[in-house]
Amino acid sequence: MSGVDNVTQDWARALLSPRSVALVGVSDDPAKTSGRPLRFLRQAGFAGDVFSINPRRDSVQGEQAYKSLSNLPAVPEHVFIMTGAEAALDALDECRVLGVPVATLLSGGFADAGSHGLENDARLREIIAQGGLRVLGPSSIGIVNLHQKMPLTANAAFAEPGLPVGGVFLASHSGSLIGGLVSRGKQLGLGFAGLVSVGSESDLSIGEICLAALDDANVTSFMLFLESLRHADQLRRFAIEAARRGKPVAAYKLGRSREAAELAVSHTGALAGEDAVADAFLRACGIARVSCFDSLLEIMPLLGRMSGGPGRKRIGVVTTTGGGAAMAVDQLAMRGLSVEAPSEATRARLAEAEIGGGAGRIVDLTLAGTQYKTMRTTLDIMSSAPEFDLVLATVGSSARFNPELAVQPIIDSAAAAGTPLAAFIVPDAPEAVRLLQQAAIPVFRSPETCADAIAAAASQQAPIAYAGNVRSEATDQPLDTLDEAEGYALLAKHGVPAAPHAILTIGEPLPDLPFAFPVAVKVLHRDLPHKSDVGGVVLGIADALALARAVTDITASVRKVRPDVDVRHVLVQPMMRGIGEVLIGMRRDADVGPVIMLAAGGIYTELYKDSTLRLAPVDKAEAMAMISELKIGVTISGYRGRPKGDLDALADAIVAMSRLAQSADPVVWEAEVNPMLVLPAGQGVVAVDALIRTGRK
Amino acid sequence: MSGVDNVTQDWARALLSPRSVALVGVSDDPAKTSGRPLRFLRQAGFAGDVFSINPRRDSVQGEQAYKSLSNLPAVPEHVFIMTGAEAALDALDECRVLGVPVATLLSGGFADAGSHGLENDARLREIIAQGGLRVLGPSSIGIVNLHQKMPLTANAAFAEPGLPVGGVFLASHSGSLIGGLVSRGKQLGLGFAGLVSVGSESDLSIGEICLAALDDANVTSFMLFLESLRHADQLRRFAIEAARRGKPVAAYKLGRSREAAELAVSHTGALAGEDAVADAFLRACGIARVSCFDSLLEIMPLLGRMSGGPGRKRIGVVTTTGGGAAMAVDQLAMRGLSVEAPSEATRARLAEAEIGGGAGRIVDLTLAGTQYKTMRTTLDIMSSAPEFDLVLATVGSSARFNPELAVQPIIDSAAAAGTPLAAFIVPDAPEAVRLLQQAAIPVFRSPETCADAIAAAASQQAPIAYAGNVRSEATDQPLDTLDEAEGYALLAKHGVPAAPHAILTIGEPLPDLPFAFPVAVKVLHRDLPHKSDVGGVVLGIADALALARAVTDITASVRKVRPDVDVRHVLVQPMMRGIGEVLIGMRRDADVGPVIMLAAGGIYTELYKDSTLRLAPVDKAEAMAMISELKIGVTISGYRGRPKGDLDALADAIVAMSRLAQSADPVVWEAEVNPMLVLPAGQGVVAVDALIRTGRK
Repeated sequence: MSGVDNVTQDWARALLSPRSVALVGVSDDPAKTSGRPLRFLRQAGFAGDVFSINPRRDSVQGEQAYKSLSNLPAVPEHVFIMTGAEAALDALDECRVLGVPVATLLSGGFADAGSHGLENDARLREIIAQGGLRVLGPSSIGIVNLHQKMPLTANAAFAEPGLPVGGVFLASHSGSLIGGLVSRGKQLGLGFAGLVSVGSESDLSIGEICLAALDDANVTSFMLFLESLRHADQLRRFAIEAARRGKPVAAYKLGRSREAAELAVSHTGALAGEDAVADAFLRACGIARVSCFDSLLEIMPLLGRMSGGPGRKRIGVVTTTGGGAAMAVDQLAMRGLSVEAPSEATRARLAEAEIGGGAGRIVDLTLAGTQYKTMRTTLDIMSSAPEFDLVLATVGSSARFNPELAVQPIIDSAAAAGTPLAAFIVPDAPEAVRLLQQAAIPVFRSPETCADAIAAAASQQAPIAYAGNVRSEATDQPLDTLDEAEGYALLAKHGVPAAPHAILTIGEPLPDLPFAFPVAVKVLHRDLPHKSDVGGVVLGIADALALARAVTDITASVRKVRPDVDVRHVLVQPMMRGIGEVLIGMRRDADVGPVIMLAAGGIYTELYKDSTLRLAPVDKAEAMAMISELKIGVTISGYRGRPKGDLDALADAIVAMSRLAQSADPVVWEAEVNPMLVLPAGQGVVAVDALIRTGRK
Repeated sequence: MSGVDNVTQDWARALLSPRSVALVGVSDDPAKTSGRPLRFLRQAGFAGDVFSINPRRDSVQGEQAYKSLSNLPAVPEHVFIMTGAEAALDALDECRVLGVPVATLLSGGFADAGSHGLENDARLREIIAQGGLRVLGPSSIGIVNLHQKMPLTANAAFAEPGLPVGGVFLASHSGSLIGGLVSRGKQLGLGFAGLVSVGSESDLSIGEICLAALDDANVTSFMLFLESLRHADQLRRFAIEAARRGKPVAAYKLGRSREAAELAVSHTGALAGEDAVADAFLRACGIARVSCFDSLLEIMPLLGRMSGGPGRKRIGVVTTTGGGAAMAVDQLAMRGLSVEAPSEATRARLAEAEIGGGAGRIVDLTLAGTQYKTMRTTLDIMSSAPEFDLVLATVGSSARFNPELAVQPIIDSAAAAGTPLAAFIVPDAPEAVRLLQQAAIPVFRSPETCADAIAAAASQQAPIAYAGNVRSEATDQPLDTLDEAEGYALLAKHGVPAAPHAILTIGEPLPDLPFAFPVAVKVLHRDLPHKSDVGGVVLGIADALALARAVTDITASVRKVRPDVDVRHVLVQPMMRGIGEVLIGMRRDADVGPVIMLAAGGIYTELYKDSTLRLAPVDKAEAMAMISELKIGVTISGYRGRPKGDLDALADAIVAMSRLAQSADPVVWEAEVNPMLVLPAGQGVVAVDALIRTGRK
């Protein structure tokens, strides 16, 4: 709850709703970058005090200027700094001494500037570490509070005039993207409460900033543009509090591809994680992640509206244009959403109201749907039917030529509806879009953003509660790699079963094996985790003689390839076959902490990218969900008359592996079982290889 | 070339550029549907004659009305019919008698009206069969020629005022969608030459219509909205002629999902094929297929521009907004396009011009890129560098606030550039978009449509020449299913190798086998193609005794499950293992004719949808391309030290299977080898099962 306590602190209000601001480095020329904030604040009619600081002038833009912060008649609540890095650091020092609660740093020249910014960066971190002063930035293009008429920014796009005032709080890692979102939001008629460019997050992170805005009554939902998941713990804390207050959160996250992830690295200096990790993290946070840029805007009125829990959602479709609806259905179906046909009862009600529309999956009213009564009655019937979680009205050219008429039945029906309504507008029809947006009805302008937003909203879940810090710092310590037998022992301690095995000492007589031939034999050494690469594995050994020969062969091969390694032991296992093979892996992500992955075993992991990932630990229900998400999962679930695998034991093993992250002694950094054999139902699962790396925190 | 000869025929000009039109069923009320065409034609200033036909009035909308077509002072070139179905048929008869070359039928009430329209439909087909008169429709909402100022339609969306006149010819299966495309095109500033709602294509198909427009000098490119691939042969003929004239074609095709394919069935009465068939067909036609609706508009200026042949294209990215460019890079990379870093030579030229932008994959000019000289010089250098096939300029908020300034360097550089330029505009900036569009520079308004259009344009290839009719009508004849041995014999005749096999007669003494044990034995009968389902397969038989037992078991099992089938033979094969297994299948698609599919064998076909498809026949290079497209292809290509399979023999087998469609006696309707074992390089491939269905044409 410390995050929430923060909100009550001074800095939060000073950040978002300061009663006074000071502009350090403000220019007399209102057209210049450093002259704009004063102009924007005056044009917007900001009611608080605005102090101008310029050591070289007595006045700027017709207003009194002060030499320094120390000369001001009062301590400002929020200082906006536009100077170079060194002057900015001096100003920050002054802020700290004066007791200014918040400063926003437009200045660059810190970590973003490479090696010659490192000294500035170190000084900045020192000032922050002294406490008292909270810093937004550096490289923040500012913060805007539309309800307070406070555009504290030097960026024209950020101070977009005539932007609708509303409930959406936008926070972005990318400053330059805010202009894109704000202009598109204005075109859509979406109302904003606040806009924040979070910059490099040297102090205040995007999660902390949103948490600070959470109890602002003007803020009803959050829109995030993310370039990375640094400070994931704070983002998660915010998301959990937001869900508790019923304020939904949507995000667009860069880095779907490896190429863009690489850009993120060079762009922000933060290490971008894999996209699957981001997906799992945002889902665990209850944040709706969209894939299309425009969906981030269009999803806002839909958030938190769709009924029922997570899972496959049922969409009813009503249309005046068959082709338009078919486009939407195509896109919805491709994202795994179910476009549901009206039930017989619903059809009967439609027929009673003398509404046609065919017997198919969608209700196609054709031209008749341009009449108010027909569309209204249809929507009323559909939105009171129990078989839909959302009813989508697809509107054709009437939305362009008679926008009021075309959207009125949707608006009126939505006001009464139990099931939420949404609209997909096929033509370019900005007026119809604005009318629907004003009425808080989700409105989509392309079949792709329509389906993307609905899919993202439908897959939203309540955030998963967590204990302690999400984030686990990457370790600088060298890690220990356990040999296979040590790995099995550690796994067994945590309840993950391994195949029977025996350790033989090279050069000693072969003992009796505790299991029957045929067997497999593998070199056993901490320094040789990739046993096949060094000729360290022989499979299908039929008898003791062949085993002796295999041990000799392995010893010779390994000595040749890795003469530096002193090999003394081999591990022997019975040859085993399961109904299927999977890979289970746990690792600590530098941003979001421990994650657990389940994947198809063998070559299929790479070929088909058949894997699923969650934040660790998971419970058994979640483990079962992971198994069902794996495409290859059906092959161990009694597919086409095949025997059924022991899914129960597999789920237990996933849970156990996911809890390895909590082990304190040793600390497990990475654990991978590949393959884990799935035996027939009732016979369990067994690890037949294990690779585990341990270390200190 | 018959399609091209058609173009010179009268109907083509009368369809698209009639000198006189007659409106049958025109209303006096200009607000009514049937009153609109006259009003639209007059408002547009159509220069030709317009005759109004209304048997109940002497004048309509202040103009003289005629009782019937026969009363007209001259035979009109194009008759637009708006009456009910029966009156429409009478009017068509009159057209035929008078020698009218073309009639457009707005009327419904034919096949679209279900059972009670069938009689009308039959009469319509009879009129068409008599020749002389060509019919557009029924259920066509009309045709518009913007250069001729001829909006021959009753649909307001279709007669959109102020639509830019240009070179794009739009033809659509969906009439209601045209309003969507036209309004969005207007917003984008895209210029249209003509618009056609093709309706139910009872006579003129979308391919014939586009072919008729091909030699119109005002038409420079084609935009298709397709609901099905009926009349695929005519579409292909058009596409080949269009490519020959350098007039590019783009298409949006409904039916990506099974759900929408089902809608297409009920919507158009046509059988929608699988989406993979549509993909293969459109690719073979050289038609660029887009996935996003807005891409269909945005792709037009890009078509035919990207240099080089088909394959992975190299995109250079310049930006003023890092976040905006990263979104585009993400989407490009997800579609397999390569975002290329500038070469060292290019970087040197940029450095020489004192242009920064970092050392990464993209050139990020940040704010400096808002200056004309910086952006212009950068684009000049990038577009003259040999490492790019396309240079994408990503423009941030400057496109909104200073559109002329922001787009001018792109326009000026494009005028000189060797490599084509395109632009992605991050904010809502309609003016910048329009300026770029006017300059014929591809401009994208979302990262998704940007990447989708570039991917579609990049994968365009020259149409594949073909001999004879593409289309093969579905057969009504009952087909013969060959038994496995007959199947192997037919395959062998066409050069597809099968595993060795012997036929045993049940009840007779077992002969010596021409191959060694272990063997597999399978029931052999035309009526039992699914042998496993009837207990008709035993694998891994070690010796003669076990073989005898297996034959007895199979006989007993089949007699129990299928007592109706008189089983006399079994087929014996040696147990064989390959490096991999694939499925090769040939079938005749009702729309596009023979297709050849290569897929992962066994359960992976279904689990991972790992398959690739082409129109048949294919040559060896295409067969090799199919192997490389299959994900599982790498496992037989020497993956991770595995032995390499005989890809050469596999490609030969694919070619041979693809030619089965050309076999005349018997006609092969369907042939599937599953699995085809791929042996080590030099050892060939062998079919170990075959299912072939033959019949007459």
